[in-house]
Amino acid sequence: MNGTAPGRLLLVPNTLDHGAQAVAIESVLARGVIEQAAALRHWAVEDARSARAFLKRVAAVTPLAAPLQELSIVELPRPRKGSREEVAPAAWSALLAPALAGHALGLLSEAGLPAVADPGANLVAAAHAAGLPVVPLAGPSALLLALAASGLNGQSFAFVGYLPQEADARIRRLRELETLSRQQRQTQLFIETPYRNPALVTALLAALQPATRLAIGCGLTLPQGWSGCRTVGAWRLEPPEVPERLPAVYALLAG
Amino acid sequence: MNGTAPGRLLLVPNTLDHGAQAVAIESVLARGVIEQAAALRHWAVEDARSARAFLKRVAAVTPLAAPLQELSIVELPRPRKGSREEVAPAAWSALLAPALAGHALGLLSEAGLPAVADPGANLVAAAHAAGLPVVPLAGPSALLLALAASGLNGQSFAFVGYLPQEADARIRRLRELETLSRQQRQTQLFIETPYRNPALVTALLAALQPATRLAIGCGLTLPQGWSGCRTVGAWRLEPPEVPERLPAVYALLAG
Repeated sequence: MNGTAPGRLLLVPNTLDHGAQAVAIESVLARGVIEQAAALRHWAVEDARSARAFLKRVAAVTPLAAPLQELSIVELPRPRKGSREEVAPAAWSALLAPALAGHALGLLSEAGLPAVADPGANLVAAAHAAGLPVVPLAGPSALLLALAASGLNGQSFAFVGYLPQEADARIRRLRELETLSRQQRQTQLFIETPYRNPALVTALLAALQPATRLAIGCGLTLPQGWSGCRTVGAWRLEPPEVPERLPAVYALLAG
Repeated sequence: MNGTAPGRLLLVPNTLDHGAQAVAIESVLARGVIEQAAALRHWAVEDARSARAFLKRVAAVTPLAAPLQELSIVELPRPRKGSREEVAPAAWSALLAPALAGHALGLLSEAGLPAVADPGANLVAAAHAAGLPVVPLAGPSALLLALAASGLNGQSFAFVGYLPQEADARIRRLRELETLSRQQRQTQLFIETPYRNPALVTALLAALQPATRLAIGCGLTLPQGWSGCRTVGAWRLEPPEVPERLPAVYALLAG
């Protein structure tokens, strides 16, 4: 890493145990990826505290290029709380300064692949606009692990983020997704904040058709993780227990 | 692994270098995943030849539980060529025999996560129907790496598989995806057989609107891999070179 090397943005995957008990980092991340993370001196991260925790786990496998406190770790800008304003493009470009100066810059999320369901996509877009190479390192995505474990249609699927929180709006959205799934033969994936998992499961079993297949991937890659897929009718006879403390991904395919 | 242990189906990720020069397996797969693969004696695979090649790479990192030729490696059933008949459900259940007898059974695709864009999803569904635990092991998906590297909307995205081969039908499908992307603010991902990459790029640049953003993730995790994202108008001035021998993932987001 020096001024003549080409700068670039490395998308560094994290483990999937955010908010749960830590797993061994080498159970989910490749040695080569851990080594590339250890070599980075510049980071743009979703959360500095969890990034430092990640780097400590990296350091336990392979030495960091510099002591943790000497690394540059900058958090991604966020819109002011309650504001609907977007972060100004200049704020994203400023974060790229190390890469524009010829360094490798790591982008890290709190869990899984950065820039998939977090604000990092703006930094990736800014890197492309600046002509910087964007290099995604191999790592797991809870969304895709849940899809693979569902046995539902993996040739056509959509991830739609979070459902509305308000009860009536959530039911309408679920029925809309069910109809879309039936018309397009497309698996629909969505997530929920862990503490709302039990309420979402209740809503799913109430709102969806009995023949719709519903898959749940809960705490995947964790020791207590599990996956299940049944028709809504079958789940109603034996409702799934999705704890408030584990991340879960939901997938449905209308019958 | 014995008759009293619970059988289960392990979804084992493969590397992403199928059809290209092999990368170091430890650059993309976690040590823990490689060790779990090495411990398996029973496999259901998309292709036996590539599965044996994968297991040789595994064996170079950690010893296999038994010599390669003593492992049970069974290919997934395929519909007869040219037939539109589906494989009978009994054929999938038969593959699960080792798991039903209390063994761990590995499911392996030619590249990336099994059961996402390959026939393995049927085996996963059969495992759920038989009440067997389904355990996805952490590994990369070319689709999600391409999405992360695109900088496009990762909060809402769809994978739609292959586009039609016939020119007019392909243009209609592309315009349909573009409209859908605009209406739903949803990134649309698709793939193509590598040797048709150049023809697809030509079609994309001809059919899509200049303001639509088009991302290409080509040979991701390979040394010669690259990612790019520009508007269609900008790509027209400097068309991307997507070789006939590298797997590529395409993503568009209408402007």
